[in-house]
Amino acid sequence: MKQYLKQDEWKIIEEGLNPHYNKISESVFSLGNGRMGQRATFEEDYSGETHQGSYVAGVYYPDKTRVGWWKNGYPEYFAKVLNAPSWIDIKIKMAGQTLDLAQCQVEKFVRVLDMKTGLLQRSFTATLPDGKKVEVESKRFCSMADGEIGAIRYQITALNFSDDIVLTLSVNADVVNKDSNYDEKFWDEVFKEATPGSAIVTAQTRKTFFHVTTAMTHKVESDGKNVVSKVSTNTREKYADNVVQTELKQDKPLVIYKYAAVLSSENHAKEKMVEHAKAKLSEVVTAGFDVLFEKHASVWAHKWEECDITIDGDVAAQQGIRFNIFQLTQTYTGEDERLNIGPKGFTGEKYGGSTYWDTEAYCLPFFMSTAEPKVPRNLLVYRYKHLQKAIENGMKLGFKDGAAFYPFVTMNGEECHNEWEITFEEIHRTSAMAYAMRDYVDYTGDQDYFTEYGLEVLIGIARFWTQRVNWSTDKNKYVILGVTGPNEYENNVHNNWYTNYLGAWTLRFAQHAIDYVKGNDVKRFEEIVAKTKFNEKVETEMWKHISDNMYYPYDPKRKVILQQDGFLDKELMHVKDLKPEDRPLNQKWSWDRILRSCFIKQADVLQGIYLFEDDFDLDTMRRNFDFYEPMTVHESSLSPCVHVVLASKLGYKEQAYQFYLRTARLDLDDYNNDTEEGCHITSMAGTWMSVVKGFGGMRIRDGKLHFAPYLPDQWKSYSFRIEFRGRVLKVKVANEKVETVLEHGEQLEVIMNGKPVLLK
Amino acid sequence: MKQYLKQDEWKIIEEGLNPHYNKISESVFSLGNGRMGQRATFEEDYSGETHQGSYVAGVYYPDKTRVGWWKNGYPEYFAKVLNAPSWIDIKIKMAGQTLDLAQCQVEKFVRVLDMKTGLLQRSFTATLPDGKKVEVESKRFCSMADGEIGAIRYQITALNFSDDIVLTLSVNADVVNKDSNYDEKFWDEVFKEATPGSAIVTAQTRKTFFHVTTAMTHKVESDGKNVVSKVSTNTREKYADNVVQTELKQDKPLVIYKYAAVLSSENHAKEKMVEHAKAKLSEVVTAGFDVLFEKHASVWAHKWEECDITIDGDVAAQQGIRFNIFQLTQTYTGEDERLNIGPKGFTGEKYGGSTYWDTEAYCLPFFMSTAEPKVPRNLLVYRYKHLQKAIENGMKLGFKDGAAFYPFVTMNGEECHNEWEITFEEIHRTSAMAYAMRDYVDYTGDQDYFTEYGLEVLIGIARFWTQRVNWSTDKNKYVILGVTGPNEYENNVHNNWYTNYLGAWTLRFAQHAIDYVKGNDVKRFEEIVAKTKFNEKVETEMWKHISDNMYYPYDPKRKVILQQDGFLDKELMHVKDLKPEDRPLNQKWSWDRILRSCFIKQADVLQGIYLFEDDFDLDTMRRNFDFYEPMTVHESSLSPCVHVVLASKLGYKEQAYQFYLRTARLDLDDYNNDTEEGCHITSMAGTWMSVVKGFGGMRIRDGKLHFAPYLPDQWKSYSFRIEFRGRVLKVKVANEKVETVLEHGEQLEVIMNGKPVLLK
Repeated sequence: MKQYLKQDEWKIIEEGLNPHYNKISESVFSLGNGRMGQRATFEEDYSGETHQGSYVAGVYYPDKTRVGWWKNGYPEYFAKVLNAPSWIDIKIKMAGQTLDLAQCQVEKFVRVLDMKTGLLQRSFTATLPDGKKVEVESKRFCSMADGEIGAIRYQITALNFSDDIVLTLSVNADVVNKDSNYDEKFWDEVFKEATPGSAIVTAQTRKTFFHVTTAMTHKVESDGKNVVSKVSTNTREKYADNVVQTELKQDKPLVIYKYAAVLSSENHAKEKMVEHAKAKLSEVVTAGFDVLFEKHASVWAHKWEECDITIDGDVAAQQGIRFNIFQLTQTYTGEDERLNIGPKGFTGEKYGGSTYWDTEAYCLPFFMSTAEPKVPRNLLVYRYKHLQKAIENGMKLGFKDGAAFYPFVTMNGEECHNEWEITFEEIHRTSAMAYAMRDYVDYTGDQDYFTEYGLEVLIGIARFWTQRVNWSTDKNKYVILGVTGPNEYENNVHNNWYTNYLGAWTLRFAQHAIDYVKGNDVKRFEEIVAKTKFNEKVETEMWKHISDNMYYPYDPKRKVILQQDGFLDKELMHVKDLKPEDRPLNQKWSWDRILRSCFIKQADVLQGIYLFEDDFDLDTMRRNFDFYEPMTVHESSLSPCVHVVLASKLGYKEQAYQFYLRTARLDLDDYNNDTEEGCHITSMAGTWMSVVKGFGGMRIRDGKLHFAPYLPDQWKSYSFRIEFRGRVLKVKVANEKVETVLEHGEQLEVIMNGKPVLLK
Repeated sequence: MKQYLKQDEWKIIEEGLNPHYNKISESVFSLGNGRMGQRATFEEDYSGETHQGSYVAGVYYPDKTRVGWWKNGYPEYFAKVLNAPSWIDIKIKMAGQTLDLAQCQVEKFVRVLDMKTGLLQRSFTATLPDGKKVEVESKRFCSMADGEIGAIRYQITALNFSDDIVLTLSVNADVVNKDSNYDEKFWDEVFKEATPGSAIVTAQTRKTFFHVTTAMTHKVESDGKNVVSKVSTNTREKYADNVVQTELKQDKPLVIYKYAAVLSSENHAKEKMVEHAKAKLSEVVTAGFDVLFEKHASVWAHKWEECDITIDGDVAAQQGIRFNIFQLTQTYTGEDERLNIGPKGFTGEKYGGSTYWDTEAYCLPFFMSTAEPKVPRNLLVYRYKHLQKAIENGMKLGFKDGAAFYPFVTMNGEECHNEWEITFEEIHRTSAMAYAMRDYVDYTGDQDYFTEYGLEVLIGIARFWTQRVNWSTDKNKYVILGVTGPNEYENNVHNNWYTNYLGAWTLRFAQHAIDYVKGNDVKRFEEIVAKTKFNEKVETEMWKHISDNMYYPYDPKRKVILQQDGFLDKELMHVKDLKPEDRPLNQKWSWDRILRSCFIKQADVLQGIYLFEDDFDLDTMRRNFDFYEPMTVHESSLSPCVHVVLASKLGYKEQAYQFYLRTARLDLDDYNNDTEEGCHITSMAGTWMSVVKGFGGMRIRDGKLHFAPYLPDQWKSYSFRIEFRGRVLKVKVANEKVETVLEHGEQLEVIMNGKPVLLK
């Protein structure tokens, strides 16, 4: 855990250059706009520790999986989020010396991310080795108003000299992924051009043949006037630039504007991309930095109106939640149904693929409550569109007859992850798609989703479970062998309770969907029966038999659910008894030691109780929480938020607050020592849930909104805003007082602490 | 299973060119001499399916392991057996046409491996696309008399034309490993030279900097006289050749002799290698093919005298055992204590590393019984020399205080394998080193091995087990969690019986070694105590407590040992009920399906009963064999031999015979559909055990040789020869008659079918 960032309600602030934390800051201060994103690397040269990362949504590379040890059934490729051509570079030389903060004496370094407007600012003074001293202020943003635009304003002032200055402004596709095996490059050049005033490179991804055109133009001003300069151009393989030579006069700020257009062949015909990029550049340069920024900031203003959460009296908590909402919002805008929410968003390239079960289990509630209805629906339809691929994925592993086994990681519906204990065994994810449907239908009331899309998916998933269980003559029950639960610190276990529970529930839920569709649109039902070759009688009888006879591991002595068979053979210890130098375990312990230990990455028994809260009484919940929580190391970013919700329900207020800080400030404080690889984007939706479902106690039961809010002791008040079935509600919780305002829509009865309240 | 090879007592014969089986034949017909080896690829060009493979003992490359998914504690590199510079090529062009059997009409193709003399022969007639017809006869060997020499006699005869012929004779270090990730090359050039008459390349492995000098010279004759020819030379990166242009006259055989010297920096000073190679070439060319071959064949004659097994009345069985002995003998000669026995020997590059537990558990008995005493002792000392590395290996995984965790795969004592379920979890291998010591001391009576080397190793291994177990309060026993047994079709299981049994036995065996050393050399004991910081009282009390309180999974209903906890939850099926198209499972089923199934790669309960036979009564053995054998798919080459021994003991004669064929002809008949990747060298020692321990019933009890021979119904007789404590015995088993002859050494009492017999 590190606490080098300054707390502020709307800003993330780093004061002083921290070379060892630089990669962390690059992640935390990242910018994005749903289409493209950029780590907070410096515009000028930097020879210290850094990871330059530009990303373009939907553009990936299928890296080889046939390295190391390959198992039958692995996918052909491992999809990688691609480090894309860089557009931010403004390299600076004065009297032959490069401005490089790793080689200068740096003072007054400040890096600020203004979350209200999505602006990254940086300023410093630097003394070069020969004593020349300059002051720099830079600002940049990725436009939320136009997802293909980035803009930089970079101001440099000589403090103790006048001399020539040489600026190199480039676009560069000669980039490499940090996780590239053998440093292979993934981009080939298609086109490049450098003219005085602009530089353009179109690069193509190997194998997938996505094209990305990166174009830049610039203006150099002093005193608001164009500066007289000499501009030369260079190109080399996958690279084009403008070199601007001019004079830097003492105390006369020189202002460099660099505008970039980043276009993807996902959105443009390949043969038109250069033309479109040029047109975009010309638009952009005409509008200018200030006008572009104003449009961008106004989109942010609107977004904040929709989904801001305020916390009064606790700056760390307020900063945390806003940071989470900010990052989520700039990662996924919901406009493009081909896209999804990658665990690192635009902040890093770890975790390769784009879509995990995180989307269904964590992100969906945030988008249901804060975005227009088509956004969550698009997230569900994304999986419907992948149904055939999920069936094919199942077939590769030996499943048949339309069993849908959704991939653990995917770009386009195909599995693209190759650890057997995950790819083949973390099977609970296929039911996350079913659970999301329940969540969606409960929240929106849109049961016709079953008819239109849902039932087909559910039949496929139910078939998967039917084939994945086996009958244990020893236990006289159905068992599920060889799985990995959400707690990935156990692999290849038998009868993981969470998995068994989810499997059985899915079979009942599929029956529920059948009943609905049959009762409401029998013609469509018959169409689905024909399409899926569904043998209703035989299949549903089997579903019932399995769900009625599923085995659930249990310890009668402690009266707790068992995470899996054999869990009690472990040495049962508490996290608090670990030495600090052993944490995080995943960086300090060998894998087998982690596996053998009782320590839990994210507690899947508690995850199950959280998802199916109404199936358990409070005592059961408490016993299990008290048993598992002390063994949980929360080394999955998805873990603490669930504990906020459960601790809240159990009245463990102080614990809930501490878990809240952990999820909200996970990246700001680098809790798990891994933020330098990127921020934990999907778990940020869990932070939102912590407030709304945890402290706010929001639930849906029988189509009605329930609240049971309380105020953490550290806070004066908090408020959140949700959209619900055409209404907009604002809930403000202060000491002894809860204010619920219907801001928009027809009157609505909500249940507040168990009592109906009519909102008008 | 394929049966395209002809049966013969001393030869392996392939008649007709089988392009689809070519890579299998390349493995089966491989040559080696303990120092170098060569797959049976063609001398001339071949554009069909082939895998050119030359190998030099002890030369390896540390490939990256940081590909795919890396776990904490993995080794830094994955050592690869290296495809070494090729010395066999004789490329042939006539009238601009390349002789390439894939492009010709081929008749009378015969490939013969004469195991008696270690000679590979090949002959065929080929009609080139333009109608030219040639007859070719080639012979080659890797000299067993001088491990640095290879020689080829290649005779070509024009059958229907006379024309110019161009021969390209090269040495080529521009080779690549089949399993190279991203086709990386592992060799750099150090030196090359081509002069008329010779070509030399010295290449250096990247990272490990081994040097290998490959040099060749040649002679071209017709009618026993040197042929007039034009010789030109070429070099390019890592390559040197001689191009010989001469005339091929109809019906006048042209004979090409190519002699190669292959020198490794493991045996020569780097700066002297070229000089030494040249000297060797000059020796070789002076001696000539026939003399060299004679020396080579006489070494083989001596080897066969030492270790031949004869089987009368069953050519398939006779061919099988000789093939196994032949391959084993040409893989490991026991002369160089730095070397060990790689699972593929010189026949392929799969399995990367050189040394597995195969050496201790399978190969040692063969070498104890057929080689001079220093050979098995060298194999044990090899591990003693790696003790410090084994301790360091343990430390990487969190073990401490001198716990020795031997690597699963190694070249030099360091672990070089990176599958967590193997590297971290297949821990039984560390006790294979202890078991080998027991086996060695029992056989040789050399108890002083404990004093000199063994006890230090045993203390280290015992410490490993002490730290690896944990106390289960649930079971009130010690348990061992998270392991993979020899049956690698189960991963990360709890309480694998074999592992628990071996762990507890090791602790008792270490105590036994202490008692011996203390009783015989108390000074040395104190030296070991000091060196290992051994706290005898505390540590041995802990050993006793653990071995007395170890948990062993058991099914009281069936009265069988359980392979591991939870085994009975599986759907218990028999191999015979599998569809043929599902076999071999490891090529047809996804990994998770294999893991969930009851099917067993090699039955580790039976392996344990085999190793500790005297701990179990016959009924127990039978119940377990009858339970586990039907579930065993024998997809480990190490499996069938153990079943021969057990089935023999149980009187299951027909089963024993079938298992024998399976182990003996595993590669000849390509049982597991993987021989093209190389032969299963280490399991060949298991084939030897099948005869001697299985059919012959040989055991050591209380320092005495026991036999309980029987004759498989299919055989008329069989015989084997063993060395034992200074004696040489020959045992011949015929119908109703067993003949045991003491060929050498002092008189000896052996126990034949329970009765003492004095041999003079």
